[in-house]
Amino acid sequence: MYPAIPVTRTDKPKTRPQSEDSLGFGQIFTDHMFIMDYEEGKGWIDARIVPYGPIAMEPSAMVLHYGQAIFEGLKAYKSPEGETLLFRPRLNFERVNKSNARMVIPQVDPDFCVYALKELLRIDESWIPSAPDTSLYIRPFIIAMDPFLGVRPAYQYRFMIILSPSGAYYPQGLNPVDIYVEDEYVRAVKGGTGFAKTPGNYAASLIAQANAYKTGYVQVLWLDGVNRRYIEEVGSMNVFFVIDGKLITPALNGSILPGITRRTVLELAAALGYETEERQLAIDELADLYKQGRVSEVFGSGTAAVISPVGKLKYEDMIMEFNDGKIGEISQKMYDIITGVQFGRLEDKYGWIDKL
Amino acid sequence: MYPAIPVTRTDKPKTRPQSEDSLGFGQIFTDHMFIMDYEEGKGWIDARIVPYGPIAMEPSAMVLHYGQAIFEGLKAYKSPEGETLLFRPRLNFERVNKSNARMVIPQVDPDFCVYALKELLRIDESWIPSAPDTSLYIRPFIIAMDPFLGVRPAYQYRFMIILSPSGAYYPQGLNPVDIYVEDEYVRAVKGGTGFAKTPGNYAASLIAQANAYKTGYVQVLWLDGVNRRYIEEVGSMNVFFVIDGKLITPALNGSILPGITRRTVLELAAALGYETEERQLAIDELADLYKQGRVSEVFGSGTAAVISPVGKLKYEDMIMEFNDGKIGEISQKMYDIITGVQFGRLEDKYGWIDKL
Repeated sequence: MYPAIPVTRTDKPKTRPQSEDSLGFGQIFTDHMFIMDYEEGKGWIDARIVPYGPIAMEPSAMVLHYGQAIFEGLKAYKSPEGETLLFRPRLNFERVNKSNARMVIPQVDPDFCVYALKELLRIDESWIPSAPDTSLYIRPFIIAMDPFLGVRPAYQYRFMIILSPSGAYYPQGLNPVDIYVEDEYVRAVKGGTGFAKTPGNYAASLIAQANAYKTGYVQVLWLDGVNRRYIEEVGSMNVFFVIDGKLITPALNGSILPGITRRTVLELAAALGYETEERQLAIDELADLYKQGRVSEVFGSGTAAVISPVGKLKYEDMIMEFNDGKIGEISQKMYDIITGVQFGRLEDKYGWIDKL
Repeated sequence: MYPAIPVTRTDKPKTRPQSEDSLGFGQIFTDHMFIMDYEEGKGWIDARIVPYGPIAMEPSAMVLHYGQAIFEGLKAYKSPEGETLLFRPRLNFERVNKSNARMVIPQVDPDFCVYALKELLRIDESWIPSAPDTSLYIRPFIIAMDPFLGVRPAYQYRFMIILSPSGAYYPQGLNPVDIYVEDEYVRAVKGGTGFAKTPGNYAASLIAQANAYKTGYVQVLWLDGVNRRYIEEVGSMNVFFVIDGKLITPALNGSILPGITRRTVLELAAALGYETEERQLAIDELADLYKQGRVSEVFGSGTAAVISPVGKLKYEDMIMEFNDGKIGEISQKMYDIITGVQFGRLEDKYGWIDKL
């Protein structure tokens, strides 16, 4: 269907990690990477798989100055039978195009991207770890390459996919985290870039994360930038609340990332018979509901953690504790089923898995 | 005062541009660049001047994924006597630290930065063009370098200064531009990164600029992200209005860049006896004042253009034309005096000039 992608194999394979117990996250990279360039008038050209290594970058490359870039994150998993499984990969490349449209980056062909990813995975398949809960983190990204200091959309881009074997996110089991409501800094605003997976959103969030660590918290709960009242995300994850047994998450409003795990949680919950709702949820409304004893669980959702239960939430002088600081029943069920399907331990009832 | 900076001179000097008439902006770079690295626990180390050229960048370098970076822009000018003049360079490196604080990048020593810049300029001084209104554009920038995909502030940074001989901004003289009020996209918001010179702000603005071009406009007027009502910037410049003979610019509120040209215009206007005011200015208030015939001039201020007069401003169905679409008296005076001092044609009464 697509032409073969030229491959230059490394003649210096890297030393593999000695153990899959201490892979960490995003620190180790495989032997190869996928590259494709874009030139104005030619489109996306020169797709190739080459040895992993540094790229030569002009100091004036536009991405370094004006941040025109997007990225994605997904994982490949080893099933008990040794198959390589991808979780809804096409959704990531569809989202690339939504991010690209906002950032004035040319559209890509999502099917070709999935094809290219699979070609790359076939070459580095032996790098996919198989110890419990380990996986291969996949990072596609696009950067503006013109060596030019004028402020305008670039004419040249580079699309790359790099692969990083990564350890279990929860080596000690799911552990609820403590977070607080961020009331000074804002991550994104309507009319801005919040729904796009673009570097600037993450750059803007670092200061709040650094402050949270300093005060003994793991993450912050972001409120909207206009009213400073409506709940948006937790850290770099989407956020869910179980209120009166119903699963509620902030509606996509332009400043919230349309998470693929978010979508999966909503679909799975509906399939399991839970009521779900995407709506505006104000922090003061949440506090009132909490006081009435109606908020039973809170969790973040994202590719890295899948489900990240929230034990405590600090809002002004109030500390809300959920489910006695332990993981809740629905959070645990979501985690077990989604990771079960991802790792091929459970039947793929919903068509989420794309086998290599 | 500071130790000598090691210099590696190029053994392949570049071919110089044939003519200073067509330098353009930000496309040509000199023979050398300044680099300094930061490592956690060691601070800023290994300051050096090396031949200009591509740097080897890990595909996982944090700047490419999470946009943790800042930059600056200033110029060196040739005086009629052949001296090299810098315009308030210390202010740029003071602003670096304000940007760094927001972006969780370690502070730099502004005096050392000015010293390093001057050392670099001495080596590439012959690259500074001397044709009328040409200059050497100076781009200091800092990028996060850790080869790591986790979202956190980096431990390793690179500070670089690159130099680009640039042509006259107005080869045909100051020409007022047509702009419109942007009502869909937002550049920055209170609590965000608007006051920092960081790539994400520029990335977020590209779509509005691209749309403006498509519809025959040169730039957009940005409104605040909360009320969508208060004027913030024009394109990537600060903005001034002459209302009842008084020079008014939006007050620095956290989402507006504290421009050095902005500050210079305010100081110069006061010295010349004009009333000035930094305040909130709503777009509907401006429209009312315009209807009453009280808005005589509008201009942008920034390093590249210095002063960029606005001829027409579209707001909803209304087209405001200022000074019959011609440059106004105050705009022209500001431009003439500031550029006069920058190029050493006028006496430096205000202590703006730092000679090499």
